[in-house]
Amino acid sequence: SRFKDVRFVLVAGDSQRVEAQAKYLAERLFNGVGSERYQVEQLTKSRSRFTLFKLGPCLLSNHGMGCASMSIALHELFLMCQTAQVIKLITVLRFGTCGGIGVSAGTICITNRALDPMFQDFIELKVCMRLVKRPCVIDMATVGTLERLCKQYPNYEELGEYQVSVGATIATNDFYEEQGRTNGAICEHTLEDKMRFLDRARELGVINMEMECN
Amino acid sequence: SRFKDVRFVLVAGDSQRVEAQAKYLAERLFNGVGSERYQVEQLTKSRSRFTLFKLGPCLLSNHGMGCASMSIALHELFLMCQTAQVIKLITVLRFGTCGGIGVSAGTICITNRALDPMFQDFIELKVCMRLVKRPCVIDMATVGTLERLCKQYPNYEELGEYQVSVGATIATNDFYEEQGRTNGAICEHTLEDKMRFLDRARELGVINMEMECN
Repeated sequence: SRFKDVRFVLVAGDSQRVEAQAKYLAERLFNGVGSERYQVEQLTKSRSRFTLFKLGPCLLSNHGMGCASMSIALHELFLMCQTAQVIKLITVLRFGTCGGIGVSAGTICITNRALDPMFQDFIELKVCMRLVKRPCVIDMATVGTLERLCKQYPNYEELGEYQVSVGATIATNDFYEEQGRTNGAICEHTLEDKMRFLDRARELGVINMEMECN
Repeated sequence: SRFKDVRFVLVAGDSQRVEAQAKYLAERLFNGVGSERYQVEQLTKSRSRFTLFKLGPCLLSNHGMGCASMSIALHELFLMCQTAQVIKLITVLRFGTCGGIGVSAGTICITNRALDPMFQDFIELKVCMRLVKRPCVIDMATVGTLERLCKQYPNYEELGEYQVSVGATIATNDFYEEQGRTNGAICEHTLEDKMRFLDRARELGVINMEMECN
């Protein structure tokens, strides 16, 4: 199997961001070494839905927006990794933009706990007429490694004290209403409702909000 | 506003399908009339996420996969239509592939009722720490028009009696587990669970399953 050497699976929402990341890794991680193993290979023809790139031990894919879309991509990626017998060897990293809560703009947020907009730490699936709760278990060693790597960045100190933050992330199923925005096409909540929600989130250690962390 | 004349909003998951549909409409609906009004205009540069095409009174967009992704696209489209003051004049049509339940392969399924995998006819949003139930209200006049138009197709009789079916559609938040598939990367349900789910769905008038009808 061509996926036998895969150890890292990197996913993001947008296909262009994933392609840029693959090229960045090729340049930086492998110092531009021209070995064939470290060339970026695009394994999918179409870019309109999922794309797949491989670069040495890294498999990169985009999963669209929202947990429903991402769940399809993850099932497919995990099936590939099961077939290649590397499912127990891989580390999955998701990256993307997010809305910060109580952190400065530009802060890199590393998730150590995934919540829904009701602050529950599981997602609920409706499987064959039964409600199934699935927790999101995060590898704390990887969280520590990511934080350490960020802080080793040569110009880290110049970037200010809030450049990396580790905390809880809320994943929502909607960008406007579920994130408390008051500028969507439908809005039945008030600015006070929004601020109460964001304040409560901050009290619970939430540092950011997006749509795919759980 | 350039959207003042919009009366139909057509959405589908995939950007390539939306583009093909815009070109098909330009050829067929307007009989290839070369009027500038009926040229397909692509209004977005990128195709990696949402695309937007306009063709006379039709606005076409793709919304990705799953209700979360679609909710972003619909908020944006509705905001545009509100700004253009046509929000009360538009008909929204969603089209796409689906899995049929109790109908022959190739059947055109027209949704007259949207359900979730627990057979509930609403979706639940988590807005500012409150659970909000939103029904999916379908315009039955449009359902009737679509069915009539399908049956007026010149070769309709040759296509067999199951070529158009009107009934309930289930929208799921996952392609594998929530649709009862037993070939996903995670599967804790049995083939019997799956068949019980599909049988019950059929009893309730469900004709197909997809991920964005509600």
